[in-house]
Amino acid sequence: MIKAIDLNSDLGESFGQWTMGNDAAVLEIVSSANIACGFHAGSPDGILKTLKAAKRHNTAIGAHVAYPDLVGFGRRNMDIASDELIADVIYQIGALQGLAKAADMTVTYVKPHGALYNTIAHDKRQALAVIEGILAVDPQLVLVALAGSPLIALAKEKGLSVIAEAFADRAYHSDGTLVSRKKEGSVLHDSKLVAQRMLRLVQEGGVESIEGIFTPIQADSICVHGDSPDAVNLAKSVKELLVHHGVEIKPFAPSLMVTKV
Amino acid sequence: MIKAIDLNSDLGESFGQWTMGNDAAVLEIVSSANIACGFHAGSPDGILKTLKAAKRHNTAIGAHVAYPDLVGFGRRNMDIASDELIADVIYQIGALQGLAKAADMTVTYVKPHGALYNTIAHDKRQALAVIEGILAVDPQLVLVALAGSPLIALAKEKGLSVIAEAFADRAYHSDGTLVSRKKEGSVLHDSKLVAQRMLRLVQEGGVESIEGIFTPIQADSICVHGDSPDAVNLAKSVKELLVHHGVEIKPFAPSLMVTKV
Amino acid sequence: MIKAIDLNSDLGESFGQWTMGNDAAVLEIVSSANIACGFHAGSPDGILKTLKAAKRHNTAIGAHVAYPDLVGFGRRNMDIASDELIADVIYQIGALQGLAKAADMTVTYVKPHGALYNTIAHDKRQALAVIEGILAVDPQLVLVALAGSPLIALAKEKGLSVIAEAFADRAYHSDGTLVSRKKEGSVLHDSKLVAQRMLRLVQEGGVESIEGIFTPIQADSICVHGDSPDAVNLAKSVKELLVHHGVEIKPFAPSLMVTKV
Amino acid sequence: MIKAIDLNSDLGESFGQWTMGNDAAVLEIVSSANIACGFHAGSPDGILKTLKAAKRHNTAIGAHVAYPDLVGFGRRNMDIASDELIADVIYQIGALQGLAKAADMTVTYVKPHGALYNTIAHDKRQALAVIEGILAVDPQLVLVALAGSPLIALAKEKGLSVIAEAFADRAYHSDGTLVSRKKEGSVLHDSKLVAQRMLRLVQEGGVESIEGIFTPIQADSICVHGDSPDAVNLAKSVKELLVHHGVEIKPFAPSLMVTKV
Repeated sequence: MIKAIDLNSDLGESFGQWTMGNDAAVLEIVSSANIACGFHAGSPDGILKTLKAAKRHNTAIGAHVAYPDLVGFGRRNMDIASDELIADVIYQIGALQGLAKAADMTVTYVKPHGALYNTIAHDKRQALAVIEGILAVDPQLVLVALAGSPLIALAKEKGLSVIAEAFADRAYHSDGTLVSRKKEGSVLHDSKLVAQRMLRLVQEGGVESIEGIFTPIQADSICVHGDSPDAVNLAKSVKELLVHHGVEIKPFAPSLMVTKV
Repeated sequence: MIKAIDLNSDLGESFGQWTMGNDAAVLEIVSSANIACGFHAGSPDGILKTLKAAKRHNTAIGAHVAYPDLVGFGRRNMDIASDELIADVIYQIGALQGLAKAADMTVTYVKPHGALYNTIAHDKRQALAVIEGILAVDPQLVLVALAGSPLIALAKEKGLSVIAEAFADRAYHSDGTLVSRKKEGSVLHDSKLVAQRMLRLVQEGGVESIEGIFTPIQADSICVHGDSPDAVNLAKSVKELLVHHGVEIKPFAPSLMVTKV
Repeated sequence: MIKAIDLNSDLGESFGQWTMGNDAAVLEIVSSANIACGFHAGSPDGILKTLKAAKRHNTAIGAHVAYPDLVGFGRRNMDIASDELIADVIYQIGALQGLAKAADMTVTYVKPHGALYNTIAHDKRQALAVIEGILAVDPQLVLVALAGSPLIALAKEKGLSVIAEAFADRAYHSDGTLVSRKKEGSVLHDSKLVAQRMLRLVQEGGVESIEGIFTPIQADSICVHGDSPDAVNLAKSVKELLVHHGVEIKPFAPSLMVTKV
Repeated sequence: MIKAIDLNSDLGESFGQWTMGNDAAVLEIVSSANIACGFHAGSPDGILKTLKAAKRHNTAIGAHVAYPDLVGFGRRNMDIASDELIADVIYQIGALQGLAKAADMTVTYVKPHGALYNTIAHDKRQALAVIEGILAVDPQLVLVALAGSPLIALAKEKGLSVIAEAFADRAYHSDGTLVSRKKEGSVLHDSKLVAQRMLRLVQEGGVESIEGIFTPIQADSICVHGDSPDAVNLAKSVKELLVHHGVEIKPFAPSLMVTKV
């Protein structure tokens, strides 16, 4: 039985004079921070400040790599060439490693962002490019991927450690896939319900699907958001219920690093 | 007496579909390549290709950090805040280190580019920010600075190793400063003359100033350009004459790393 | 005696997913909206939405042209070449005119932003470039400039109509210049006091300087901010007191377009 | 029988210090210049210089609007939202109109660039966004579209004038579609052959397909390239043969503005 789980969230997404999210509040909650690397969000000075705050909270940090699309916040699919994607991934990880060094931290994982995250869950060509980019910088970096996606086996096959993640505020189908955001009921807003679902995920290894059936979800990390006061409250509820039931919130430990399929 | 000198040049300055310079030709000549880091020039894919070519030539590589000003090619002064400049320097070095790792190379030095280079030669605030950025990533990185500039002593005082560089195609005043580009005769085009001057620099430790006086220039590296066929020919002439006179062209060796003032 | 005054504020400064300011609240207050043009802030979709909202409020719109510096929000001085600055100004005005056309509006004035605003108040070379850019697109465009600055006479000499503006929340010296932000007391926060000062400006043509002397300020527009709830409240206070005393808040009318010195 | 045809080419694609193409040589050949608007290429200063050169050559100018993707040169598909695409198109046209005004010219048409050009040839949602953007700025602007594409009828239905264009250096299938660049023989390099094909296009209204059959191509403009010395020579050959056979090279005249299907 799992006694511990990781909570991750997106941080460092301010840009110059524009702020986004509430990094200070989220750092009180999560064990892992996905840090923007400048391509969809994040300017160096702001990233560094977030890293220093993460250091004070002893939070694990990962590179939140993205398509080069600031105005679109990395949320628009892009048919980028493999060579370009490989180099973009390396550049972003390297830039974050540099800033992490300055904050006396170490980048331990990579979580692709937005459209890139969704695309590589199923697009093999782009997935291989991301994997090759990560391997080229540091094969020890763990890839955080969508639970149940083909990406998981592909990345393992290429030699990466992979952590599967579930989304606290999203509904799942009975086959373990996410309900599309375009469908009603896809995003959950009831913090009590969401917390209960995540407790069940940790204790029983699954959630009730939108079709009403218990559905196994293999996940070693839970993604929560901090981009609104409601999102922060939802994340808090999840953490509190888990802790109340004796679940430890901590970064995916080395022993958990290889996800069992 | 010096039997060896370093030749450095700016590389990796293409951007996406736009090419600049002739990296292949320049890599045949220089011992050190200042690689653009994406802020004034250089996109990840192109930078990586240049790094792999530099690897094949066994050329040393340095981070050519710059102001964030792509359209201005980093040639416009900018009164950037110190915190921003520190983080920008770290980000760029980190990004290049990541790409260098992928090319099985190591970034050994930092040479600021364009307006930043000129500004920190005399502006103490920005100079300290660049120094702090370098120290935060890796105190082993060597700073390449304008020969005779106050930056050299400042950077050493803060703990950095510094290499002073001379410019092959520039005229000097008798006090060792560069003749401003705005003045006639500031840029030298006669490749034979330039080569002779650089030989004298290596053999006698100085050049004839624009005022006609022998002027000591302490330099462990010579900067040559590759942004035009003429520039490449001039660089070749310098190298050939030096080699003909028994001067070895090689990266500034560890023993040379601390410039003696 | 003036019975009317213009209130202006910066709008359209969101960028992609990042929001800034409260355009809806500010449009309830001001008569003129300085709209970001994409160089320091503003992405096309967001600018267009702000223009449509301004249309519904019958607010005059001006081009808030800036240095090309998104990450620095146009707040960093840049020694840009004149040809580049001229073309940058034209490009930004043209882009806004296009979007204004789509919102069934007309750009009637230009107010440079941030560092560019401050620089051209006294730097003749850059001032001439901005003036030339405006004249090249549309000589009917009014330039909004710092009250008391040499820019005003220069722009008029070149054929532009100029409106001088005062800053509601800033302290003035007895010579009519702004107290530097670096000095204590330079920025005023007491909304009641600020409103009284602006009433005096309209009624008596001046304010009390930081040295305690009545100081004439010739201004046909007052700049207020909307980047925080406090700023919005301060702007409201100014407007309410002015309206209460019979001052009409309206865009600088054609009859006011030529500022009398 | 047609006695005149338009030759168009992409210009203004330099960016800051990076040059691309040979605008001076191409302006000697073409009657219409598709001018980059800053999103895939083109910085304001360079665009303005190209516009002034086009003015001297009495060349018609069009807005070469693109996805916001500088590093990818607008060649990567992007699933941009309709509102964003509409505003991006308006912004780019407006910016070019501003610069054109400064060069005493008028933008008369719009030709989408790269991936956007190819996508809207068949993607109705993005096509409608581009059409809406053009209509919002100026319904008199002519849209240049791929000969034979569904876009032509769609744009006409929405009220735009449309000009169909053929590509001088590309092979066609017997159904009038372009042979994919991925297939052998898709790009033609023999300047004599290409010139002969374009003469036939003008005289007989079609070309021989890659399958060896005469294929009608309805086109009022021929696209030629200038991005290499070979491309410039090919364009020259086309022009010389056409002129030799009495075909006038001129911008699509008002009488030609409505393409007959």
